[in-house]
Amino acid sequence: MQLATRIVLGERGAMGDLPIQIEGEGRDGACVLVCEHASNAMPALWGDLGLNDAQRAAHIAWDPGALGLARALAETLDAPLAAACQSRLIYDLNRPPHHPGAMPARSETTDIPGNQSLTAQDKLARTETLYLPFHAELRALIARRLARGTMPVLITVHSFTPVYFGKPRTVELGVIHDADPSLAQAFLHEAQSQTSLDTRLNEPYSAADDVTHTLALHATPLGLPHVMLELRNDLIADEASQVAMAAILAPVLRAAIARLNQQAGEAA
Amino acid sequence: MQLATRIVLGERGAMGDLPIQIEGEGRDGACVLVCEHASNAMPALWGDLGLNDAQRAAHIAWDPGALGLARALAETLDAPLAAACQSRLIYDLNRPPHHPGAMPARSETTDIPGNQSLTAQDKLARTETLYLPFHAELRALIARRLARGTMPVLITVHSFTPVYFGKPRTVELGVIHDADPSLAQAFLHEAQSQTSLDTRLNEPYSAADDVTHTLALHATPLGLPHVMLELRNDLIADEASQVAMAAILAPVLRAAIARLNQQAGEAA
Repeated sequence: MQLATRIVLGERGAMGDLPIQIEGEGRDGACVLVCEHASNAMPALWGDLGLNDAQRAAHIAWDPGALGLARALAETLDAPLAAACQSRLIYDLNRPPHHPGAMPARSETTDIPGNQSLTAQDKLARTETLYLPFHAELRALIARRLARGTMPVLITVHSFTPVYFGKPRTVELGVIHDADPSLAQAFLHEAQSQTSLDTRLNEPYSAADDVTHTLALHATPLGLPHVMLELRNDLIADEASQVAMAAILAPVLRAAIARLNQQAGEAA
Repeated sequence: MQLATRIVLGERGAMGDLPIQIEGEGRDGACVLVCEHASNAMPALWGDLGLNDAQRAAHIAWDPGALGLARALAETLDAPLAAACQSRLIYDLNRPPHHPGAMPARSETTDIPGNQSLTAQDKLARTETLYLPFHAELRALIARRLARGTMPVLITVHSFTPVYFGKPRTVELGVIHDADPSLAQAFLHEAQSQTSLDTRLNEPYSAADDVTHTLALHATPLGLPHVMLELRNDLIADEASQVAMAAILAPVLRAAIARLNQQAGEAA
């Protein structure tokens, strides 16, 4: 079932300022999906940050393929999806406002001219226009489920570049957790037995690299099962491969959640 | 300096629906203070929950004395104060929406008639009108400081009843932490050397009793130093004793923060 997409306006109300798009808000599955790096859009309010087209299309500006994968997964799992509407270079929604990576002056080997000399006021404006509404809406999406008596499973969907600082990466699927490793471990087990993907726990990043801010804000304080999925972006470069990957990962996720529920049942 | 009080309206906009009052938002000290159980007001929207005047004045409905203490502390420390505007029996802002204590059917020995048969829709309405705006505004208050490059210290201010389930409590000041014990330990040390208060760590409650939700939402994910102060309410029963207690606790808090900063400096 395709439900209406709800657009949540930022404080300034202009189209370019959308901090978040929620798709399938009324879907009733066990999961809530999040894609913080869904878009490489640079709304007019902030301009192009001094980057050329190639730089704006690169992984430094977004997670290529992640939105298509997240959408296909969300539809298969009957889950709502909260996705960002602007480039992570304007504000990286998976970082807190004081983190150097929230509005980075440099990403991998690229200087970001528009982020070189941000004042406290500039940072405050991006925080208030993008970060706060995104996370307030995501909190509301989760809290509405809690108030109805269901504890959602939080899944964040990301992609990573096959070559980083000149070094190729062989890992294909990274399975990352915040404080509670249980769903990530169950997912790893299922992925390794159900798929041929080179799947690894807490690679190419882990919580120690500050990449689990969304999970730390929304899953850990509420004790929600959670996992961050990181796909190597060459595996999800077009819509067909994104849909195919979702068809591989959805049963893995379902089996991992069932395994977790079974463990909880045995412990009870 | 007494700054203007900013009132943040809930979704319905009526006076009775205020979820939060922020005092001294522009104050520039190191701390942000929170008083989730500041008020025993029961706005018309929800009625009196079937309780009589004595029940509505009792500790089950709020933390008597906590707001006066928090206000005096906030002024002394030049800190903003975020305080609730309605009774914890309508929504306990220090509990997540799925917690049985968020909209409790019973508190200590008192049944709460208006909370006996809440539907999912009732719980959702209170969550959206009270819990979500309160924590969104508190998050914004903190995030604005982070965007300016300062890491605030988060202090929640509570009071507890001298007699609970018929049993007297001898502890006078409880010092409670969420994940990071460092400020609580420093505060305990300073309180025990500077005051004659019977001060104890993680009494009469601790994080294991689910009493640190605000700290878990706002301090722990950001690595903010934090402490929850619990005063026995007979020690802060009137304005004079609240002001006097603030005069005792403010130097303790300052010394504890200085001790923490010194430790951080030595570790760096």
